[in-house]
Amino acid sequence: MGRWEPNTRERLARAALELFGERGYEQTTVAEIARRAGLTERTYFRHYADKREVLFGGAEVLREVFAKAVAEAPPPAAPIDVVAAGLEAIAVVFPARERARQRQSVVGSHPELLERELIKLAALSTAVAEALRARGVPDPAAALTAEAGIAVFKVGYERWIAPAEHRELAELLHESLTELKAVTAGSR
Amino acid sequence: MGRWEPNTRERLARAALELFGERGYEQTTVAEIARRAGLTERTYFRHYADKREVLFGGAEVLREVFAKAVAEAPPPAAPIDVVAAGLEAIAVVFPARERARQRQSVVGSHPELLERELIKLAALSTAVAEALRARGVPDPAAALTAEAGIAVFKVGYERWIAPAEHRELAELLHESLTELKAVTAGSR
Repeated sequence: MGRWEPNTRERLARAALELFGERGYEQTTVAEIARRAGLTERTYFRHYADKREVLFGGAEVLREVFAKAVAEAPPPAAPIDVVAAGLEAIAVVFPARERARQRQSVVGSHPELLERELIKLAALSTAVAEALRARGVPDPAAALTAEAGIAVFKVGYERWIAPAEHRELAELLHESLTELKAVTAGSR
Repeated sequence: MGRWEPNTRERLARAALELFGERGYEQTTVAEIARRAGLTERTYFRHYADKREVLFGGAEVLREVFAKAVAEAPPPAAPIDVVAAGLEAIAVVFPARERARQRQSVVGSHPELLERELIKLAALSTAVAEALRARGVPDPAAALTAEAGIAVFKVGYERWIAPAEHRELAELLHESLTELKAVTAGSR
């Protein structure tokens, strides 16, 4: 990153979330986000391609952490257990729940942000499937296990940020995986 | 539909696919699609909101057929078997494989079309989850079973339109579901 401050991305993301909460997503400009973070618009665009992207800075981290955990899981594990290891790994890197809730209230009310969220999830699934193939898992098992992992992530994450929820993300992801196993086994 | 010809949507979709194949998606206008179909631009916009949408006319049918099959599956079935019934039902309504391949070659090479495809799949998942809840399946089982069904659909459909594939969609969806059950059981 050279002369960039190491936490520039984070400062911009925090400023954006504050401003989106205060005046709404549409009413906030990139220039205002940069100013609130004490940075220039030029710096903003060095880190994020557009106004939407500042809400998805975590997606790349998520992809890397998930894929790395899949790559490094002990060799004899079944694909679904490898994905379980990936889910455990990503549960650790998530920001505070309150911030995730704030972010979701912005994303959930703007179709173009939901679109981008779906694209990031699809890219996550692709990365996990590739990591499984690199471990020697054949298709369609690799693609299906990755999709199953993303399904578990989506459902577990939604539960985590639900208003009255107090359990931790790791627990909810684990529970969702157990539930997925139960439903696909047809046992309930 | 009143005075509209019953197959207007289909004529427009066919004309669009022809033109996208001949001169590319970007180079084709809505006016040209309408003209090729022997219709007016005004008629086009009565049926499709924009140029993208003509490629997704089947999504609504898919959603209705899937949700109806889920709603009407015999009562004592496990959720995953109900979703299996939905997959069987949609396999029947798909257009010819060659046309699906043509469509996919357009969708797959344009990010804004892939985006819309992901949105349609998310809406399909939501509709299936709702149909499961209406049957009394609680959450998170309803959401997870629906997501699992969509994962099976995605993977089975991709295999169906793959270049050298000759097996039928119904068979590939069934096989993908069996494979998903195997991977989530951790048996391979």
